[in-house]
Amino acid sequence: MALVSVILGSKSDLEAMEPCTKKLEEFNVPYELIVASAHRNPAKVHDFAAAAADNGVKVIIAAAGKAAHLAGVVAAYTTLPVIAVPMRTSDLGGLDSLLSMVQMPTGVPVATVAINGAANAAILALQILATSSEVYRETIQAYKRSLSEQ
Amino acid sequence: MALVSVILGSKSDLEAMEPCTKKLEEFNVPYELIVASAHRNPAKVHDFAAAAADNGVKVIIAAAGKAAHLAGVVAAYTTLPVIAVPMRTSDLGGLDSLLSMVQMPTGVPVATVAINGAANAAILALQILATSSEVYRETIQAYKRSLSEQ
Amino acid sequence: MALVSVILGSKSDLEAMEPCTKKLEEFNVPYELIVASAHRNPAKVHDFAAAAADNGVKVIIAAAGKAAHLAGVVAAYTTLPVIAVPMRTSDLGGLDSLLSMVQMPTGVPVATVAINGAANAAILALQILATSSEVYRETIQAYKRSLSEQ
Amino acid sequence: MALVSVILGSKSDLEAMEPCTKKLEEFNVPYELIVASAHRNPAKVHDFAAAAADNGVKVIIAAAGKAAHLAGVVAAYTTLPVIAVPMRTSDLGGLDSLLSMVQMPTGVPVATVAINGAANAAILALQILATSSEVYRETIQAYKRSLSEQ
Amino acid sequence: MALVSVILGSKSDLEAMEPCTKKLEEFNVPYELIVASAHRNPAKVHDFAAAAADNGVKVIIAAAGKAAHLAGVVAAYTTLPVIAVPMRTSDLGGLDSLLSMVQMPTGVPVATVAINGAANAAILALQILATSSEVYRETIQAYKRSLSEQ
Amino acid sequence: MALVSVILGSKSDLEAMEPCTKKLEEFNVPYELIVASAHRNPAKVHDFAAAAADNGVKVIIAAAGKAAHLAGVVAAYTTLPVIAVPMRTSDLGGLDSLLSMVQMPTGVPVATVAINGAANAAILALQILATSSEVYRETIQAYKRSLSEQ
Amino acid sequence: MALVSVILGSKSDLEAMEPCTKKLEEFNVPYELIVASAHRNPAKVHDFAAAAADNGVKVIIAAAGKAAHLAGVVAAYTTLPVIAVPMRTSDLGGLDSLLSMVQMPTGVPVATVAINGAANAAILALQILATSSEVYRETIQAYKRSLSEQ
Amino acid sequence: MALVSVILGSKSDLEAMEPCTKKLEEFNVPYELIVASAHRNPAKVHDFAAAAADNGVKVIIAAAGKAAHLAGVVAAYTTLPVIAVPMRTSDLGGLDSLLSMVQMPTGVPVATVAINGAANAAILALQILATSSEVYRETIQAYKRSLSEQ
Repeated sequence: MALVSVILGSKSDLEAMEPCTKKLEEFNVPYELIVASAHRNPAKVHDFAAAAADNGVKVIIAAAGKAAHLAGVVAAYTTLPVIAVPMRTSDLGGLDSLLSMVQMPTGVPVATVAINGAANAAILALQILATSSEVYRETIQAYKRSLSEQ
Repeated sequence: MALVSVILGSKSDLEAMEPCTKKLEEFNVPYELIVASAHRNPAKVHDFAAAAADNGVKVIIAAAGKAAHLAGVVAAYTTLPVIAVPMRTSDLGGLDSLLSMVQMPTGVPVATVAINGAANAAILALQILATSSEVYRETIQAYKRSLSEQ
Repeated sequence: MALVSVILGSKSDLEAMEPCTKKLEEFNVPYELIVASAHRNPAKVHDFAAAAADNGVKVIIAAAGKAAHLAGVVAAYTTLPVIAVPMRTSDLGGLDSLLSMVQMPTGVPVATVAINGAANAAILALQILATSSEVYRETIQAYKRSLSEQ
Repeated sequence: MALVSVILGSKSDLEAMEPCTKKLEEFNVPYELIVASAHRNPAKVHDFAAAAADNGVKVIIAAAGKAAHLAGVVAAYTTLPVIAVPMRTSDLGGLDSLLSMVQMPTGVPVATVAINGAANAAILALQILATSSEVYRETIQAYKRSLSEQ
Repeated sequence: MALVSVILGSKSDLEAMEPCTKKLEEFNVPYELIVASAHRNPAKVHDFAAAAADNGVKVIIAAAGKAAHLAGVVAAYTTLPVIAVPMRTSDLGGLDSLLSMVQMPTGVPVATVAINGAANAAILALQILATSSEVYRETIQAYKRSLSEQ
Repeated sequence: MALVSVILGSKSDLEAMEPCTKKLEEFNVPYELIVASAHRNPAKVHDFAAAAADNGVKVIIAAAGKAAHLAGVVAAYTTLPVIAVPMRTSDLGGLDSLLSMVQMPTGVPVATVAINGAANAAILALQILATSSEVYRETIQAYKRSLSEQ
Repeated sequence: MALVSVILGSKSDLEAMEPCTKKLEEFNVPYELIVASAHRNPAKVHDFAAAAADNGVKVIIAAAGKAAHLAGVVAAYTTLPVIAVPMRTSDLGGLDSLLSMVQMPTGVPVATVAINGAANAAILALQILATSSEVYRETIQAYKRSLSEQ
Repeated sequence: MALVSVILGSKSDLEAMEPCTKKLEEFNVPYELIVASAHRNPAKVHDFAAAAADNGVKVIIAAAGKAAHLAGVVAAYTTLPVIAVPMRTSDLGGLDSLLSMVQMPTGVPVATVAINGAANAAILALQILATSSEVYRETIQAYKRSLSEQ
């Protein structure tokens, strides 16, 4: 059963998000990967987001680019924490994706990480899971130690 | 029966959008005004957008600020043309609203006007109605003439 | 007879706008393609814009880059809806084109789509045509369904 | 015992962050409030961050402006999830604070919310606590319902 | 007979451009002042620009804001040097006006001065007139000396 | 004897400015080309600028990048019109060069053209020369006609 | 005899720079205050910069706004370290001043502090003096301690 | 014994900072090179910064990218002058690095040079050393002369 859902707005985001899924595997965090556009597949996004908590998911990671509404739309339909990964864009470098994600109005936050911050999304998800799991607490602490030893 | 629906993401946008509803009245375009946030009332936005065409609406005007997803979310659930009005913001002047609206991905366009371009949204709606209405064609032509006579 | 006119500020925009003309063909929307710069050929742009409505055109798509005045200049001479496509630029990524198009003053709106949003311009044109055409309404609805099935 | 620590880079941020502490009170989340600059009181920030997890804190909220290093510095010394609130600035509107917070390098994420997104930081903290607390899950669900009823 | 034409896109620019007309008076440069929008009065702008050289005008100063096409449109219809003054805007501070003016495509330059640089437009016009007038050469040299004596 | 001086801040700007010197040659405008940095060769820049008018120069074109002070420094030492060409930069696309040039304080304007607008600088210089030369007036008019015939 | 020279591009910068001179007084650093524009008084700036080192000055602080060339022009004429203070501007918030100062080309650096960072310029000057003065070393260390005790 | 410490946030910055270490060698300034991330190795950064002055270091150069906290964190733990080099980034060109460094709050300045301004950081360090060293004063003066002779 997935603890983390990774949802991408487009198949073209798969490569940029590979560091995210790799880190989740490295951390032994069960995850699922969904591709669904908030604009082209709104029903699929709705169904996914509305059911995620009941399916045992604890944290959602949403990656999208340009007018990146995916994280906000998911957050509208769930009370789970939603981590947003703004995708770099060829025009504006990802500033459009970043502002479209981070500037959420009062009531419906998303937890935004850096432009193309795929690995960091996984680490933040692990940190959230670690607030209630001894195993993941040890995982994040071991990862932290490994950082300073690099 | 409304031909144009004006949907606002927040009551706080009412004042900035008054030039839009005033212009629609001046043009004798029947309209309805709805306040519903894409993030706080997603079901209301969905129900509105999915039913708009069947209710006889021809054009939708959506105004929102910051991570302004409203126009894109409405466009995801309708095939009607959606005009987006990015609201000025106190932090970034509305650049966030603008990019969140205009940078829509392929497949689901919105027709974005200027930051706080409330009146222009009404004029653009009139232009769209005028593509199939002799009456509105005369209205927009008269308005055009009045501009150059100011 | 063309229902949509696609006007480009420069021959160098032809490649970036190919997705627009391809989509119009896919949608069976008769269109014409004109290359004329608002700055180098102002008379040609004027003549085109002033005559478009009488020639049976319903929607104009204008693409230009940098200080992209083309859409605004066309809109000054017609009451037809004008869709603006800001071209990506090598210096500022298209932010210059975008602001030059979207920030139109009260009275003369243009309907701006994303930077290099060529396909979306065609889809928006189709949506406008569909407000008064059963055939195009079915076309846009079929296209919408195809999006969610991708 | 505090579950959430709210740390501010400067006393001048107290007013802008009041919606955060008010929301935490409304949600019955025990919190502590600390004022300590990453640049002027680095030892205090270090001691706070290094001890937070052992003190039972589950989530840290860090607010700062301009070259806003506070959230990143805290995150360097803890494995707890750190929520970053970029403060609006009088020069650049908060774009400086936002980029200084959100663009964290791989290995040390912070969960950034909107510029001056004080209330949203509290809501996000509640969502994280709710991943392992039935009580807070009900709190966030009740809050979510209240949003759509506004 | 006016040597310099000052054309404004809107009456609302009159106040910001007062330092321009005051400086022209101080320099004894005969000028005319025209208010005409490139978007609302395109015919008036065209007629003005096409006739300016024949009317004895040597330099044109064009001031406009937002999607500021006025200078470019004037430049399209004349071979006279056109000085562009981007007006400050309430949303984006005038960055939109600046980019809409300065980023002109090859073939049709405009000479852009600072945002709200009204006085500098007059000084630049004087410098251009001084390239062929002994009187104005003395005027600009006297002005230059006065600057360093302030 | 040169009528136009083209001064570059760095040899590395030679290639980007080639369209400027080519256009001046095409227009039969005698010019001189100088490479001198406002920061590394301030004395050379001073000597050049202070003597230009006496040497018969009518217009100066200054090209520089990044913190592009060259045009402003030249303008400080001459009463001739100075055309500024902001060079594209690898970091910020030339926004730094543009703002460093165009935002000149009251009293000392420079006439800024587009980022990398080398050809336009030459055309603007020609337009200034044409205000007092029948020959150059014919040259610019012929060039203008050629534009619309392209 | 002044160890630090504070040079302002305009009298209008005096108020914003008061925290700088106050801090220098607090630190017992002898300083002189000069108002001279790089564009309006280039000779005065040159004479000041060229003589500063011989006059016993160790560090120069230069404050200016918009196309802020002052620090760079001073640095061109001296080998002393030059601290640049970009002034906030009413249009672009000081982004223009900042980029005009910080983006200096190779060979002639300036040490840029924050927009309106007047006090920090004084502190940085003190830090530089403290590299060779036991008295100022104690001053900066005492100041540092006072920061953490605030 | 090193007079200048060059600290990099990441090994990936080594290449971009080579012009810095080369210039220090050219200037015969003894330096040390340290790689330590403010976020991944905070203890190492702390230990380095706290000991630098006692180790005889006079100036610190810190280079980092994105949310570039390194220079600020070092400055928090030392009273030595800290020169900050913002690294170019693939998303935002280095605007993120620049703002994260230069916008330091009152009390803790860093001396910021241009994006990727590696050589200039070395030159600025030399200028600071030259305020109290006859040898380095001659070195910087010779370098200055060489600039104008290039």
